[in-house]
Amino acid sequence: MNTKSDLPPVFLLGAGNLAHGIASGLMNMSYPITGWWARNHSEISLPKNADSDLLKKSLHEIPEKTQIIILAVSDSAIQELSGQIPAGEYLVCHCSGSMHINILSNHNARGVFYPLQTFSKGRMPVWDEIPVFTETTNAEMHKRLSLLASSLSKICITCKSETRLKAHLSAVISANFTNHLLYESMRIMQDNKLNFQWLRPLLEETIRKAFDLGNPSLSQTGPAKRNDLETIQEHLKALEKNTDLKQIYQLLTKAIQIQKKT
Amino acid sequence: MNTKSDLPPVFLLGAGNLAHGIASGLMNMSYPITGWWARNHSEISLPKNADSDLLKKSLHEIPEKTQIIILAVSDSAIQELSGQIPAGEYLVCHCSGSMHINILSNHNARGVFYPLQTFSKGRMPVWDEIPVFTETTNAEMHKRLSLLASSLSKICITCKSETRLKAHLSAVISANFTNHLLYESMRIMQDNKLNFQWLRPLLEETIRKAFDLGNPSLSQTGPAKRNDLETIQEHLKALEKNTDLKQIYQLLTKAIQIQKKT
Repeated sequence: MNTKSDLPPVFLLGAGNLAHGIASGLMNMSYPITGWWARNHSEISLPKNADSDLLKKSLHEIPEKTQIIILAVSDSAIQELSGQIPAGEYLVCHCSGSMHINILSNHNARGVFYPLQTFSKGRMPVWDEIPVFTETTNAEMHKRLSLLASSLSKICITCKSETRLKAHLSAVISANFTNHLLYESMRIMQDNKLNFQWLRPLLEETIRKAFDLGNPSLSQTGPAKRNDLETIQEHLKALEKNTDLKQIYQLLTKAIQIQKKT
Repeated sequence: MNTKSDLPPVFLLGAGNLAHGIASGLMNMSYPITGWWARNHSEISLPKNADSDLLKKSLHEIPEKTQIIILAVSDSAIQELSGQIPAGEYLVCHCSGSMHINILSNHNARGVFYPLQTFSKGRMPVWDEIPVFTETTNAEMHKRLSLLASSLSKICITCKSETRLKAHLSAVISANFTNHLLYESMRIMQDNKLNFQWLRPLLEETIRKAFDLGNPSLSQTGPAKRNDLETIQEHLKALEKNTDLKQIYQLLTKAIQIQKKT
């Protein structure tokens, strides 16, 4: 067990959902934080009991004891902000699922700290369950970053940028695309004066079952799976005026039918 | 509050996931059941403490006190089995999301009892949360079926076959298609020696957030949403050898991009 004083102090950059999610995780466990900076200073919501001295107005105010700098900013801002961080003894990390570690090439000690979760201001992340993917360019920095990652989460994965991109792709396909299917379903429900919330127990059970069984092909049900062409035709008829959704329906139905046969 | 003796006794047909889900819900609350029949008798798993006399070998053994017959069988079997049920004083119901009530046309008193949930043998359904869609052809039967539905669930919806089909379509799009996206994600994770279970907290939070906010367009994130063309290109490159999934990726990405603008 490490004491707090063994932990590498962190300086945080960013004011978005992810930055606030990381800040709340660190502050909740009294992790040593040396400062917090964002381009738009006023967007940082510091918890009430936090020391307001943490807020820094410039990247030239990074305290010397800082060992890790976390760039919790959007992918498109990483390179530019990385260039604005003065050279120092610290490890500079971005938090992107898809960006290569070498985008931080202006720093010798570079790393990646990618938590596989969706963050929102005002929603408290359950950090110890969130898989954290880390990457560094040398063994000493690996040890340093692992101390941070394992303080927050029980699930720490070390992997290369190429592999992390595949985890990110899986996350986009399963979570972002599912969210869109939920949006389309909500519209159908609302158009028919049905309550969107009525789908909630079904979706919760779908996720539970797929992960409990460990293989979603074992939990697939529905008209495509049982090749119920009559129901599929009824559904397509109902989607006649929604060409885009009809195409998504046809493609995913075909995919389930093919999967069934393999 | 109704006493058990006010409840319309049920006779159950079927031996699949749904039939077992209904049986376990009814037996758990000691609901009056007059019998249980299935074409393949041996596939019925009667709970240990249940009376084995409940199992009937023929549809000519339907006890006279039966008030509701539940056809918990696959859509394609409904019409044929309905034809085998001798005429009687009971209400005959199917449990399909998509079949019209009039498929039971050989019975005067016909109904629909459609629970919006995915059922599996061995998984106990949380009945009081499952939305149950009912439909009947007359007011007296409506009262009878409502007594059954409201005994099981807090959420009972009366609607016509046409509206029920839309709820079923929404369920297919959100749950069956999501399950397929989970399958595709699992394959990518496994191909890269990553643990599929690492996606679980993300998916659970995605579902929670979409329903907590009540509108998934508010919880959409990811490269399509922020029009991050570089990441989208990286993902498409990673999917180069998987033409079908690449097409799904492109279509859903386009759909999210369009949604963003509306």
